Amino acid sequence: MENKKRILTGDRPTGRLHIGHLLGSINNRVRLQDEYEEFVIVANIQALSDNFDNPGKVRENIEELLCDYYACGLDFNKANVFIQSEVPEIHEIFIYLSNFATVQQIQHNPTIKTEMAQKGIDISTPLGFFFYPIHQTADILCVNADLVPVGKDQVPMVESTRDLARKFNKTYGVQLLHEPSALVGTEVNVPGIDGAEKMGKSLNNAIYLSDSEEELRKKVFKVYTDPNRIHATDPGKIEGNVAFMYHDLFNTNVEEVNEMKDMYRKGNIKDVEVKERLFKVMNESLTPIRERRLEAEKMKGELLSSAMESSKRVSSIARGVADSMKEAMLLKF
Amino acid sequence: MENKKRILTGDRPTGRLHIGHLLGSINNRVRLQDEYEEFVIVANIQALSDNFDNPGKVRENIEELLCDYYACGLDFNKANVFIQSEVPEIHEIFIYLSNFATVQQIQHNPTIKTEMAQKGIDISTPLGFFFYPIHQTADILCVNADLVPVGKDQVPMVESTRDLARKFNKTYGVQLLHEPSALVGTEVNVPGIDGAEKMGKSLNNAIYLSDSEEELRKKVFKVYTDPNRIHATDPGKIEGNVAFMYHDLFNTNVEEVNEMKDMYRKGNIKDVEVKERLFKVMNESLTPIRERRLEAEKMKGELLSSAMESSKRVSSIARGVADSMKEAMLLKF
Repeated sequence: MENKKRILTGDRPTGRLHIGHLLGSINNRVRLQDEYEEFVIVANIQALSDNFDNPGKVRENIEELLCDYYACGLDFNKANVFIQSEVPEIHEIFIYLSNFATVQQIQHNPTIKTEMAQKGIDISTPLGFFFYPIHQTADILCVNADLVPVGKDQVPMVESTRDLARKFNKTYGVQLLHEPSALVGTEVNVPGIDGAEKMGKSLNNAIYLSDSEEELRKKVFKVYTDPNRIHATDPGKIEGNVAFMYHDLFNTNVEEVNEMKDMYRKGNIKDVEVKERLFKVMNESLTPIRERRLEAEKMKGELLSSAMESSKRVSSIARGVADSMKEAMLLKF
Repeated sequence: MENKKRILTGDRPTGRLHIGHLLGSINNRVRLQDEYEEFVIVANIQALSDNFDNPGKVRENIEELLCDYYACGLDFNKANVFIQSEVPEIHEIFIYLSNFATVQQIQHNPTIKTEMAQKGIDISTPLGFFFYPIHQTADILCVNADLVPVGKDQVPMVESTRDLARKFNKTYGVQLLHEPSALVGTEVNVPGIDGAEKMGKSLNNAIYLSDSEEELRKKVFKVYTDPNRIHATDPGKIEGNVAFMYHDLFNTNVEEVNEMKDMYRKGNIKDVEVKERLFKVMNESLTPIRERRLEAEKMKGELLSSAMESSKRVSSIARGVADSMKEAMLLKF
């Protein structure tokens, strides 16, 4: 255990997880939990930074997130799923790091720039939301993470963490803060059922892990296909056709998928047939998750207790990091 | 003790205190320590925000500051002199407050605007320095201060604290954070010995409380008088004449001062005579402080221990405030 490399990853508890999360990050975490010492942060303080007027939403979604994690196969005895607000050392470490970041740097970081544009972050935005990218570096550094699994677009965030760690170490002549590396996985793009490029919690286009079989069926039958195809005998387009994109992601029978695509292009298969088959494969894949999620619902208390235990462990690791930082800054008496 | 109103005041440990501090704030604190429950913060974390590459300077000046406080008559058994870095709850409270402040607000606050112009703070400045005005509100709120003694130019800082407290309380429907009032004292302007409008640690124009009698004499004989007065028989100017400004501040014999001013205007008194008299009155006033400071030098350890004790007391008060804030934000499990 001690010699395993450490991974830091996590989510903001602002909504239930959907299949975009599953394929984009959660499956990956489940794969990594044996090989690495994994830390999974439930970032409720950062979630509050743009939901501060709705603390109930953040509070409720903590348990939802824990259920989703459990449902996907995250083992709470292996992965350290912890709650950010239970590790106040993160705030302390953030303060110590904040002397090595600038407002300019926040504004110029490419990840942040994009996010700022998307979310409309500017100087009239709450300060806590504005500086969260730097607060996030404290999440990573507080457990001495070796690796941070990210998408390509989040690499600059990890770079920024390395930069702050390096500057701190250099200024105080120490080898203390551990520079993490980005672990860039294969990009899995899961479009929304409406054909939008991304599935999003707030876009009303998501298939949730907690959706019932009935809900799944309804959503699958609503997925965006080829809007110009009126009759089943019309030749159809595969590009941008969400039904086939989902087939590519969930249907392991590649031959069957290729055959259906071929028939679709020629006008030899109905949309409803493609979707019926899609529902079947998706349901097969999601049923075990759904079942484990129902199980999880009944053990919310246990999952939360386990997260609290992990939070204590993380808090003690973070206390060590914060204390070493204090020593370097001559703040020990 | 319990029914006394609470005062929060303090300094950054970045240099020894001078007569500007003595007359501008410290004497006032000594006067207030009986009537109020006084909290005096040694703001070493904020001092690091613009001295992060020189932690030794901040570290050394903590003890210097404690000695200066003791020398001026601050009673460590009455006033709670505490060290900011020993109260990590301040950082936590700052994070909770940061959702109610904006970058814009920092930039537009008049106190901060002036300070930003003076110190050249802009977006390329360390983040920690940039947001310290909001961090400062956490110092005030963490002890539920009723009053904050400030100069007129710092009233907006107290206003900003009230504003954040009010917003927090309103958002979560609580009466929790205590809105402090500014306690605006009589402005005492102490010019530098070089005639500069203000005496400043970094301006090389200060008379320190730790200066020896010899140093005091040297500085008094260097004070800026009337540069156009060549001979003692030339009529001299009183306006902008630092020797007379100091007489006004330290010489309690108003009649004598008025007489000297009259003679000076008529060219009937030498600069050296005015200064000799000034040295005498200043030395009389500063000797007890100097003597107590020599005493303090020998008990640095005790003063620091006392500050550590107070820090524990403050930390426990702040923990209570932080916990109530967490409860309001539904962060309790």
